[in-house]
Amino acid sequence: MAQSAGALHGVRIIDLTRTTAGLFGVTILADLGADVIKIEPREITPRTLGRFATTGRTKGGVDMRVIQTYRNRRSLTLELKHPLGREVFYDLVRHSDVVWDNYRPGVMKALGMDYDTLSNINHRIVCCSISGFGSTGPDAHRPGYDPIAEALSGLIMLTGEPEQPPLYPGTPFADMGTGMFAAHGVLAALYQRQSTGRGQQVEACLLDTSLAFLYLDGTHYLNSGTLPQRTGSKSRSGPLVGIFHTQDGYIVSCVQSQEQVLHLCRALGHEDWLQDPRFNSAANRVHHREELNQLGQEVFGTQSTAYWEEALIRADVPVGRVNTLDHAFADPHIQSRGMVVSTSHAGQEYKALGCPVRLSDSPATYGPAPSWGEHTEEVLTDVLGYGPERLQALRQEKVV
Amino acid sequence: MAQSAGALHGVRIIDLTRTTAGLFGVTILADLGADVIKIEPREITPRTLGRFATTGRTKGGVDMRVIQTYRNRRSLTLELKHPLGREVFYDLVRHSDVVWDNYRPGVMKALGMDYDTLSNINHRIVCCSISGFGSTGPDAHRPGYDPIAEALSGLIMLTGEPEQPPLYPGTPFADMGTGMFAAHGVLAALYQRQSTGRGQQVEACLLDTSLAFLYLDGTHYLNSGTLPQRTGSKSRSGPLVGIFHTQDGYIVSCVQSQEQVLHLCRALGHEDWLQDPRFNSAANRVHHREELNQLGQEVFGTQSTAYWEEALIRADVPVGRVNTLDHAFADPHIQSRGMVVSTSHAGQEYKALGCPVRLSDSPATYGPAPSWGEHTEEVLTDVLGYGPERLQALRQEKVV
Repeated sequence: MAQSAGALHGVRIIDLTRTTAGLFGVTILADLGADVIKIEPREITPRTLGRFATTGRTKGGVDMRVIQTYRNRRSLTLELKHPLGREVFYDLVRHSDVVWDNYRPGVMKALGMDYDTLSNINHRIVCCSISGFGSTGPDAHRPGYDPIAEALSGLIMLTGEPEQPPLYPGTPFADMGTGMFAAHGVLAALYQRQSTGRGQQVEACLLDTSLAFLYLDGTHYLNSGTLPQRTGSKSRSGPLVGIFHTQDGYIVSCVQSQEQVLHLCRALGHEDWLQDPRFNSAANRVHHREELNQLGQEVFGTQSTAYWEEALIRADVPVGRVNTLDHAFADPHIQSRGMVVSTSHAGQEYKALGCPVRLSDSPATYGPAPSWGEHTEEVLTDVLGYGPERLQALRQEKVV
Repeated sequence: MAQSAGALHGVRIIDLTRTTAGLFGVTILADLGADVIKIEPREITPRTLGRFATTGRTKGGVDMRVIQTYRNRRSLTLELKHPLGREVFYDLVRHSDVVWDNYRPGVMKALGMDYDTLSNINHRIVCCSISGFGSTGPDAHRPGYDPIAEALSGLIMLTGEPEQPPLYPGTPFADMGTGMFAAHGVLAALYQRQSTGRGQQVEACLLDTSLAFLYLDGTHYLNSGTLPQRTGSKSRSGPLVGIFHTQDGYIVSCVQSQEQVLHLCRALGHEDWLQDPRFNSAANRVHHREELNQLGQEVFGTQSTAYWEEALIRADVPVGRVNTLDHAFADPHIQSRGMVVSTSHAGQEYKALGCPVRLSDSPATYGPAPSWGEHTEEVLTDVLGYGPERLQALRQEKVV
């Protein structure tokens, strides 16, 4: 079928976000076709500069966060604390569907940009706020960072080997997840608005997200009082399920059914294990899983990852090699998925990770990550219809 | 403002999912008010039973996955391979907005339930498919499990201490994330449908999701060729950022600005560290961060977690204690967030993790997790308008 415009074509988002959670969430909607206007401070301060030096992941002085999470936006510099700046912001609200911020609770109200104020200007506006601890509760004022939310929620305590200290999951799941949950809220509010004609407030925070990510360990604790062990490299529920090291790397085994365990043992050359009284029933294998994992590890260590992956896939055993990123991105299947995309910034081409949300008629697109204030004049002219005199005045007043 | 119905009130979803990714994603939309009809096989087979024994997280024989991810649904048993069962399914499609499955690619077509077929029955239908490897590419047929996707993508290689083997992140992020991205796609397709009048296909898979979760490490590798180190317990970008053990537990420090580093060193009683030539500038501190982390660790070890948390929060240093789940759920702020909710199943009350998506006018609700086939008659009668004779016939034919 012919491709239509992006699924969110016509949805305009005012992006006030500066943290990973907000940037990641807005980017999902930007990739799906929303018209995102990013508001930046008029001057690059050490603090705003700092945002682009802290990730430690730069190329040619460009922080990868700009490449990954500033794409598909227009950039407008605007001094929100200046009365004239606020007037411009209110005009933008009149012409927009969503205002998305990640300020600490109270800041938007102090700026005269809270939902009650903005909904009086445009009753269709959806206001999405992301924070660390949420807008309510005794710690609402505390600064939120991904590791703090993962620590308080118990997520960090679930990561690492059972007998060793807890560890940080390898990537900011609380940040990304919060942006994703916020995006659900914005999309649901936009959907509902089509029948109610009104916008509403959406909220997501790092701590709530981390609690939701506790998933079954959390639900099980709440109903049984049983504290979960850390997962580490081996499953707590089954034998021969986990990460095993091979002659030259690591491989993950995910055997679930009795049949898969049989196939695995056979492929490892040890169908005999299943005759062992310790391992001759599912219950016994669970009970003695550490011994069986040990035996499995000894055999895995005798051959390469490629050898075992090929042999086990042939034996219909669910496995996968533990890739480093170079091998991951060189994988033919991964390459075929098109998850590595091209985008640009300041005239340079870059690669980025694509959007995993796939829509058959309106696929994601990957426009440039704008330079600071690149579209200030375009937005004020095309979106707000300001004339040259007003632009001039705003520049003179150091508002834009 | 008065609360309206759920944001997704009026959206009917046919839920064919059985894996964590699908169940988690559908539950987000169910919590937000969608009318979800879960289709179950007519008979509980060892295999379907097996699904509820593998998580190892049960109470009174009830798998916590039922409590956490079957809530807010009606359950209909239906034999999809029976011609009459397919007719019933087609009738459901005529009365629904979304069909959501997690079968391996090709299965829906084999069942006569692929998008082309269903869109001819109802051109407004949105078909969402979740799989391990996606519907295209050389490995599309492979069975997908969360750890395999996290292994192949490189995510597992990012988790663990740099000098030690890679580990599994403590909870199934690829599963949950895939359900979340799929939910974005469904919501975007429903939004776009309101202008195009047509549904479309939505796809998400564990592997694409895991690649997206590589986030900055992935983007940095793609543009610089630099392989990231595992994160482990300490940040790679800054000193005194990470997990430190105390006299009785662990605490996370997230100092970012120069000022925060100063406050932390002062609170640790060692402002003098910042005079040390190794640590007297941000660059030097990054270069010598392991020595500074070592010094910090020695001091953290001399007092309790509670002591440091209280002292450091007072010093305006961003920190958080690493909670076990009992302490997490006992935390006054966490309790105030209402993320622990009540739901029921088979007449029993249970606690569950709530929905982190917060909408001011249409908050999430938490209906029961139905028993197997509990609403078969209700759905066939109220939704499809079948009469008693037809119900009787379907039962006789072992279709429902």
